Amino acid sequence: MAQLRIALAQIDTTVGDLAGNAAKVLDWSRRAAGDGADLVLFPELALTGYPPEDLVFRESFRSASVRTRDELAGRLAAEGLGGLAVVVGYLDSAGGPRNACAVLHGGEVAATYFKHHLPNYGVFDEARYFVPGDRFVVARIRGVDVALTVCEDLWQDGGPFAVAGRAEVGLVACVNGSPYERNKDDVRLPLATRRAAEAGAPIAYVNMVGAQDELVYDGDSLIVAADGTLLARAEQYAEMLVVRDLELSGHRGTVTGPVLGMTVERHLVSDEPAPPREAVPAAGAPGGDPMVDEEEVWQALVTGTRDYVRKNGFRTATLGLSGGIDSAVVAVIAADAIGAGNVHCVSMPSAYSSEHSKDDAAELARRVGCGYRTVAIAPMVDAYLSAVALTGLAEENLQARVRGTLLMGLSNEEGHLVLATGNKTELAVGYSTIYGDSVGGYAPIKDVPKTLVWKIARWRNAVAEKRGETPPIPENTISKPPSAELRPGQLDTDSLPPYELLDAVLADYVDRDLGWAELVGAGHDPTLVERVIRLVDRAEYKRRQYPPGPKISLKAFGRDRRLPISSRWAETAPPEAVAEHAEPAGPSPATAPDPTPLAVEGS
Amino acid sequence: MAQLRIALAQIDTTVGDLAGNAAKVLDWSRRAAGDGADLVLFPELALTGYPPEDLVFRESFRSASVRTRDELAGRLAAEGLGGLAVVVGYLDSAGGPRNACAVLHGGEVAATYFKHHLPNYGVFDEARYFVPGDRFVVARIRGVDVALTVCEDLWQDGGPFAVAGRAEVGLVACVNGSPYERNKDDVRLPLATRRAAEAGAPIAYVNMVGAQDELVYDGDSLIVAADGTLLARAEQYAEMLVVRDLELSGHRGTVTGPVLGMTVERHLVSDEPAPPREAVPAAGAPGGDPMVDEEEVWQALVTGTRDYVRKNGFRTATLGLSGGIDSAVVAVIAADAIGAGNVHCVSMPSAYSSEHSKDDAAELARRVGCGYRTVAIAPMVDAYLSAVALTGLAEENLQARVRGTLLMGLSNEEGHLVLATGNKTELAVGYSTIYGDSVGGYAPIKDVPKTLVWKIARWRNAVAEKRGETPPIPENTISKPPSAELRPGQLDTDSLPPYELLDAVLADYVDRDLGWAELVGAGHDPTLVERVIRLVDRAEYKRRQYPPGPKISLKAFGRDRRLPISSRWAETAPPEAVAEHAEPAGPSPATAPDPTPLAVEGS
Repeated sequence: MAQLRIALAQIDTTVGDLAGNAAKVLDWSRRAAGDGADLVLFPELALTGYPPEDLVFRESFRSASVRTRDELAGRLAAEGLGGLAVVVGYLDSAGGPRNACAVLHGGEVAATYFKHHLPNYGVFDEARYFVPGDRFVVARIRGVDVALTVCEDLWQDGGPFAVAGRAEVGLVACVNGSPYERNKDDVRLPLATRRAAEAGAPIAYVNMVGAQDELVYDGDSLIVAADGTLLARAEQYAEMLVVRDLELSGHRGTVTGPVLGMTVERHLVSDEPAPPREAVPAAGAPGGDPMVDEEEVWQALVTGTRDYVRKNGFRTATLGLSGGIDSAVVAVIAADAIGAGNVHCVSMPSAYSSEHSKDDAAELARRVGCGYRTVAIAPMVDAYLSAVALTGLAEENLQARVRGTLLMGLSNEEGHLVLATGNKTELAVGYSTIYGDSVGGYAPIKDVPKTLVWKIARWRNAVAEKRGETPPIPENTISKPPSAELRPGQLDTDSLPPYELLDAVLADYVDRDLGWAELVGAGHDPTLVERVIRLVDRAEYKRRQYPPGPKISLKAFGRDRRLPISSRWAETAPPEAVAEHAEPAGPSPATAPDPTPLAVEGS
Repeated sequence: MAQLRIALAQIDTTVGDLAGNAAKVLDWSRRAAGDGADLVLFPELALTGYPPEDLVFRESFRSASVRTRDELAGRLAAEGLGGLAVVVGYLDSAGGPRNACAVLHGGEVAATYFKHHLPNYGVFDEARYFVPGDRFVVARIRGVDVALTVCEDLWQDGGPFAVAGRAEVGLVACVNGSPYERNKDDVRLPLATRRAAEAGAPIAYVNMVGAQDELVYDGDSLIVAADGTLLARAEQYAEMLVVRDLELSGHRGTVTGPVLGMTVERHLVSDEPAPPREAVPAAGAPGGDPMVDEEEVWQALVTGTRDYVRKNGFRTATLGLSGGIDSAVVAVIAADAIGAGNVHCVSMPSAYSSEHSKDDAAELARRVGCGYRTVAIAPMVDAYLSAVALTGLAEENLQARVRGTLLMGLSNEEGHLVLATGNKTELAVGYSTIYGDSVGGYAPIKDVPKTLVWKIARWRNAVAEKRGETPPIPENTISKPPSAELRPGQLDTDSLPPYELLDAVLADYVDRDLGWAELVGAGHDPTLVERVIRLVDRAEYKRRQYPPGPKISLKAFGRDRRLPISSRWAETAPPEAVAEHAEPAGPSPATAPDPTPLAVEGS
C-alpha cells in the first residue's frame, strides 16, 4: 500500500478568463500544498471555464489555453509548488480541439489526457467542439498509478473506466463540469460507486461550483473507495478544498498499449513515497447533512443569479414587484445572491392593482430591506390609449409593456441588471407578455414550475423562522389566489387550468417529451392534455426571446429543448385511438396554430 | 444502356405537417407520373419537414412518420401510381432515430436508406438526433441500379459515394435539405461533378425550397452526368418538377456485403425496361441564367419572410417605417413576400425626426402601395419622462421602446406579425435597443450587413426600372447618411466606424472567427479591431433575445454561432505581439465587460 494525500479543489471559474482562472488554480494549489497534499484536482476545463462554446473554434483561444497551462506549470514551480501534482482541465488542440486535463509537476506538463466520451444531448454539444481521445493515461504519483478521466467518461459504459479495470491502477481521478439538476446528486454517488467497482480502484471526483449563463454547478465533489465506501463528500454550492489521506494500492501496473479500444500510456511523475507526516484531521462524517430538494433548488437559483450578475460586471439588480408570489421569490433570491441593499424593487400599480397587492409588495420590500419605489403606470397607459385603439388582450399586454419599458429605463439610467420574474409554468403556456413582464437580462425562476415556486417560498420562510428572522415573504403573497391583475377581478385560473394539474402535465410533456397517448396513459385528462399541448406549442416564439435563467430541471427551456417555431405538429390521439374513422396524423383545425400567435400571449 | 425518365420534385414542405407533406408528395407524384417519369425524388425528410429538431425525440412523432410513409405507399398505389418509384425522405426509428429515405413502389416500401454522414457543425445538430446508417442501398428501377444518398453524404469524403465507385451503380440519387448561404450554389455543382466522377455514375440531386425559421432553402436541384456534364438545373427558390430522360448504364451490379465500412444491399424494384415513348421535350440550356448575388439574397429574404408568415398562420405584417434604408428594405421585402396590401407600415416620428425622414417614409409607402399610418410618440415619451428621470442613452432607448410597444399593441389588436428591421451590422455591435427597434416575430435582414442592405436596395430599384415600374425605395433613403434620429443631428458615424470598414472587420471576426492577430494580419486597423471586438462581444445578451430571421451568410447569429453571454474572453494582441512586456492573456481593464452592459445599447 502507498499513501497519497489528495485534495479536491471545488472552485468557480469564469469562461474566457484564462488569466483569472489560472491565478485561482495557483491560489488553491498553494492551499493544497499548505495542507500537505501530494495531488490536487481541479474541475473540467478549469482554465478556460466551462462550457466555452464556440470560443473553441478560435485558434487564438485554443493557443491561449495551452500557453496558460504551460505558464501555470512554470509559476507553480517558481512558487516552490513543483512537488505537488496538479491536475487541471484545459482546452488542447493536438489533433483538433480537445477537452483535456493535464498533470502539472516540477514545472512541466507531465501528462495530458483527452476526454473520451463527449456528451451531445440535452444542453451539451461536445460533438460540435471536440475530437474524442482514445488514450488511457496513467500518471504515477508518489508511487501510485493514477488514471485520468473527464466527466462524461464516468456516465457512459465502456471507455476509460472499463480500461481501468484491466490496467491495474491505484486511483481514478475524474474532473467534472457537471451541471446541477434536481436529484442529480442522488444519481452521482451510486454511479461513482459502480464505476469504482468496475475500475477496482477508488474514485476521486471533483466538480465545479458556480454558474455560467443557464448552467449551475453544485459541486458535490466526492471520494469513493473501491468497495463503494463514501470517504469524503464536499458541500454543495461552496468553493472548498477537500483533503484526505488515502491508502492506495502501490502495485506497479505494467499493462500498456491497446486495451478495449484505448491505448494505455504510463507516465512517471514521482515514485518516492510520501514522507511520514501527521494524518489529516478526520473530518467526521463525510459531507454534512444532505440538502432537501427545496434548499438545493434555492441555492441553485441564488448561485445562478449571483454569478450572472458578477460575471457580467453588474453590482445591482432591479425588478418589478407586484405583490404576487413570483416577483416576491425573485426579490428574495436576488437579496440572498447580491445583498438586499443592491436590489432595487419597483412597484408599478395600475388601475386594476388591488390594495392588497400594493401592500404586499411594500411589506416584502420592508421585510427584505431592499430598495423600493412606486411608479403608477396610468399616465403612460393613457397616453398610448389616446394615440391608438387597443382593447382586450392588447390593452392587458400594454400595461405589462409599460412596466417593462419603465424597468429598462431605470436599468439604462442607473445601471441595474433587470431580473425577469416569470416562472416555468408561465413560460411553458405563454402566459406572459413578450417585451412586458418578460424583459430582463436574467430570469431566476424561469425553470421553476409555479407549484415549486410556492414550495420554495414556504421553505425560505421556514428557514428564516428557524434562524429567528422575520420570514421575508408575506403570508398573504403565498396564500392568495394568483392573478395578473390586468383587468378587474382577473384570476390566473380564468385562463389556465389549476396549477397542480397543469404542472403535472407540463412535467410529462415538456420535461419527459411524452406524446398524447403516453400523457393520457399516465392518467392526465385528455381534454386538459390537448389544451396544454396547444398552449405550449404555440408559445415557442416567446420562449426564444426570453432571457436566460438557471436550469434546475431535467429539461429546461433553452439549449436543452430545441423545437421549431414554425411547426404544424400537434400531438393528438394516434389513429388507433380514434375508433374507426382514423385520420392521418397532422394538425386538425382545432389544434392548428392560432392565426395570430403574437396576439395570444395571455396577460 | 437503359433509359430512365427521372423527375426531381423541388418542393416546400412544412415541419410537423405530416399529412400536408404527404398530400404534397402525392400531388407532385401525380404530376411526375403525368410526365411519364419512372422515378421521382423528393427532398430530405420531406414527410416530417426539415429540420424537425427535438420533435425527433418524441416516439409519437417518429411512429407517425413511419405510418405516414406506409400510408403514402398505399395511396400512391390506390391512385394507380404504383408503377412510379417514389424516393422520399422521412424519419425512421429502426435502431434509433434515422434520417431516412424510402423507395415507394407498387404500394410497398421497396427499400430504405439511412443517412451515413451526419452534419454536426454550423446550424446542424444531427449527432444529437440521428444514428448514422452503414448500409449502402441500391434499388434496381427499370433495370437501372440506383444508389440512395442523403445530403451530407455528398459533402464528406468516404461513405456512400466512395462505395458507389466500387458497387457498379447506374445512378446516384441524392435527396437534400441544404440551406442557402451566399455563393453555396457555386460550390454545389463542382462538388456534384467531383462525386459523379468518384461514383462513376450520374448524380440526381434534389433540394428543398422554402424556409423553416432561420433556414432558407434555395432548391438549385441538378443532374450531372458521370463525366461532369450538367444535364439539368432547376431554378432557385421555385417549387418545380425537373423531368429528364437519362441513358444510364444497364449493367447489373453484383457486389454485395461489406465495402469500405458499409454493407451493400441490393433491392429489385422493377427490371422491365421503360416502354418506348416520346422523349421529354428538350428544355434548352439546363437551368436559366444564374442569379446575381443581390438577387439570390433578395429571394432568400423574401422566401424566408413569406414562409415564416404563412407557416405560422399569419396573413399580414406590420413594421415601423422611419424613412431610413433598413425599414424601407424590410417593407419592400414584405410586400414582395405577402403582397403590399398585407403590409401595414407605421411612421412613429419623435421630436428628433427630420422632415425628410417623414417624407421619405410616406413616399416609400406610396410607391409600394402598402398600408401606412402615423403615430407621433411625443405624448407617450413625455408621460414616461414625467414619471421617471431618464436622460441620455436611457432617453434615447425610451423612444425606441415606445415605438416597439406601439407596434406590439397594433399586432395584438389587429393580428399582424411584427417585422424587426435591424441589420446584421447593428446586431453585431449592439447598435439597437432591446425591446425597442428589436421587437418582432421575424427579422428579415438580421443576417444582412449594412453595406449589403444598400446594395440590395439599389438592385431592387434597378429591377423595378427594368420592368418599367417605379423604383420602390426613394433615392434619398438610399443616399442620405444613416441616423437613428434619437437626438438632434445624430448620425450613426457618431457612435460607429464607417460601415465599409466596420462590415469588413465583422465579416472576418464574426463569419470567419478570426482572432486579433489574424484580423490585424488581414489588414484591419488594430484600433478599429479592438473597438469592434469589444462591441460585438458585449452585445451577445441582446442577440439572444432577437427574433429569428433568414440566414444568408457563412455564419448567422443564432444557432450558427453559439457564444457565452458571461465571458471574460477578449481577443487581444497575443503576448509575442506586445513587444517585451508580455502579459498573460485575459481581459485588460479597457476590454473588460462594461459594468452596465444593459446600458450600452446604442440607440
